[in-house]
Amino acid sequence: MQRILSTQLTAHVHEKVTIAGWIHRRRLLKSVAFLIVRDAGGLSQVVVTDPQTREQLERLTEESVVEVSALVTANEQAPNGVELTEPEIRVLSAVGVPLPFELHRPALSAGLPAQLDHAALALRHPSRSANLRIAAAVTAGFRKALEEQRFVEIHTPKIVESATESGANVFQLDYFGRPGYLAQSPQFYKQLMVGVFERVFEVGPVFRAEPSDTARHLAQYTSLDAEMGFVTDHRDVMAALTRTLAGMLGEVTERVGRETPEVPAEIPAVHFTEALRIVGAPVDEPDLAPAHERALGEWARREHGSEFLFVTGYPMRKRPFYTHPDPADPAYSNGFDLLFRGLEIVTGGQRLHRYADYVAALQEAGEPLDAYRGYLDGFRYGMPPHGGWAIGLERFVARLTGAANVRETTAFPRDLNRIAP
Amino acid sequence: MQRILSTQLTAHVHEKVTIAGWIHRRRLLKSVAFLIVRDAGGLSQVVVTDPQTREQLERLTEESVVEVSALVTANEQAPNGVELTEPEIRVLSAVGVPLPFELHRPALSAGLPAQLDHAALALRHPSRSANLRIAAAVTAGFRKALEEQRFVEIHTPKIVESATESGANVFQLDYFGRPGYLAQSPQFYKQLMVGVFERVFEVGPVFRAEPSDTARHLAQYTSLDAEMGFVTDHRDVMAALTRTLAGMLGEVTERVGRETPEVPAEIPAVHFTEALRIVGAPVDEPDLAPAHERALGEWARREHGSEFLFVTGYPMRKRPFYTHPDPADPAYSNGFDLLFRGLEIVTGGQRLHRYADYVAALQEAGEPLDAYRGYLDGFRYGMPPHGGWAIGLERFVARLTGAANVRETTAFPRDLNRIAP
Repeated sequence: MQRILSTQLTAHVHEKVTIAGWIHRRRLLKSVAFLIVRDAGGLSQVVVTDPQTREQLERLTEESVVEVSALVTANEQAPNGVELTEPEIRVLSAVGVPLPFELHRPALSAGLPAQLDHAALALRHPSRSANLRIAAAVTAGFRKALEEQRFVEIHTPKIVESATESGANVFQLDYFGRPGYLAQSPQFYKQLMVGVFERVFEVGPVFRAEPSDTARHLAQYTSLDAEMGFVTDHRDVMAALTRTLAGMLGEVTERVGRETPEVPAEIPAVHFTEALRIVGAPVDEPDLAPAHERALGEWARREHGSEFLFVTGYPMRKRPFYTHPDPADPAYSNGFDLLFRGLEIVTGGQRLHRYADYVAALQEAGEPLDAYRGYLDGFRYGMPPHGGWAIGLERFVARLTGAANVRETTAFPRDLNRIAP
Repeated sequence: MQRILSTQLTAHVHEKVTIAGWIHRRRLLKSVAFLIVRDAGGLSQVVVTDPQTREQLERLTEESVVEVSALVTANEQAPNGVELTEPEIRVLSAVGVPLPFELHRPALSAGLPAQLDHAALALRHPSRSANLRIAAAVTAGFRKALEEQRFVEIHTPKIVESATESGANVFQLDYFGRPGYLAQSPQFYKQLMVGVFERVFEVGPVFRAEPSDTARHLAQYTSLDAEMGFVTDHRDVMAALTRTLAGMLGEVTERVGRETPEVPAEIPAVHFTEALRIVGAPVDEPDLAPAHERALGEWARREHGSEFLFVTGYPMRKRPFYTHPDPADPAYSNGFDLLFRGLEIVTGGQRLHRYADYVAALQEAGEPLDAYRGYLDGFRYGMPPHGGWAIGLERFVARLTGAANVRETTAFPRDLNRIAP
């Protein structure tokens, strides 16, 4: 008999059906026993009165996988108004050990480290799996919104020749007997691909050998990258990002039925110097501290009713070498950050596009041009004005769901102390 | 003035417009000059008669990036029946060096190594960019078909603790002072995630330290992975794969207008022992050689009119430890390969799902159980019968387009000798 999902039961009242899933919970009362089965759709309640089946159920333990053939019976008291009666239970996979923690309570009793140690089990709990479903919706919305704007998907190398771009915090590996490095971002490659498709995006892993163990850093995370050519300046990039954000949150609402914050048609934007003034920081601060970001988040909500705030014009000295300066004031950049509820979740901006500007920027940074050969090729052979952004998926989902730690929004986190499971 | 694309010109005849792109070619005739501009949509022809503009054009070189404001004029002789006249040219980025090879001919004159050395330039040629557009369509079709079948997208670690699964050909890295390895596949993680979502997929990079330099191997490639629970056996997996393949090829046709081979509603399948008989190989051969695969491809086309052929029941001794045996003859497996035009492009099958079976299989393989801790957890705590598959994106696209080398279907290939650009 074809298996159906728990969500399909209401369409089969008075019929015999087969469901399958995990034993979520058993309640062995005196005259009757209840078996709650969990599947991809949710929970089903199975009523056991037959003594032999009850005996079978008593021997089984939670998380065993079973197939249940039974009659669908209406019962107003049961979840969704239906339950399964006269069941035959077939065991697909029996669990023979006690669980390290229970899955059937609203919250997991185990702390985060124990959850991560037993990820295969913990991720089955709705509090964990819901975040991953939201991540899948965010990613799908990102792609959909960008394809509507003519962006083409690309895949770029994760093993690179030089520890360039930021220099620090890279993982080194043995690449056929010579050193190689894990890419910290697809930055260089997505810029080169602007020369091919004008607009490109990539969803993929990036790697940071972060020596600090915090609630917002991972050694591997999923980066949602985009880059677009023929922009006037960073404001075109911010407009494309705004439309993309709306698509991402719209997809979350559509797929998981969760209300999401409104993305204003034009997200409020303040210049870096104005941001310093708002938070009362000294005018010569080179960057925004986390406390400043939080204060700006509150300000944006209060003054603009917005959960989002662009900060533009970061000082050039704090941005990477490929950043385009503000033509009106070259000490400041055409780079921006996007704050979401007072936390930076997107970094972006306009990039340099002329070959001579790259040579000058790299020389000023004291970088050897030879390490940037393949990258510089793109600019030597003609590149339009362009810009783009990168969003950290886990951090974005954490901010959206209120998760306190990015390890709650990734399935198998990697950090300073964790490389398994 | 808002820039429009070359493909939009026909809607603006008699209007003044602005286009932007790369100087694809110049033709400097005696009385008139033609400038061909390339953008994301295609080519536009600009007619230059004004002496001053001609002088400007003579100083510019191919691949410089320009913005052209001009009048759209109907001309039956021109591409798409329109050309641009009375142009004003603004240079966005001038190229000051000769190109290593020309882009405006139908085929690239440079050999593959030179193309790969100058990837930023070579990828702009339609012969190279078309493959990447097809790869993007294949990937989008893969996701779409799987989401229609209730699969959920996941992201899994690319840095792993042990050189498990196949043991050989792994890249080792320094993970905060201890050894780590690049994942050869998301196999273990996608299986664990069947315990969470029942059906999952992942599109992501996988890494193989292939010591051989062939036309079909890369050190990094994009793997299209899927895994599904509650299957009867491998045939449910093959049915889901068949539907997914149809979606992938359908998306290629829809997006790039390219005709693709038909995917039969039921792809012909032969058992491994039958396959050996067809190609006239000895009955004790443990695997199919490339020549066998080619012969089977011809056989499938001749006997079934199909470009695709499943070979099922590979001997257990040639499949990985997690492979489910054929219950009717345990020397053979419930694993399969899919041949496309006589080349293996998908490997899949039913997996073991009981904890005790994993312990036995690992012990028989002489593997230390401790290295598989987090993986075994999933089976210890209940896993349904399940199976899945992996498709190599670059190899699939090469087979589809007829590219002789997988390096032609990836933007920046990585192999034994190449780590840049």
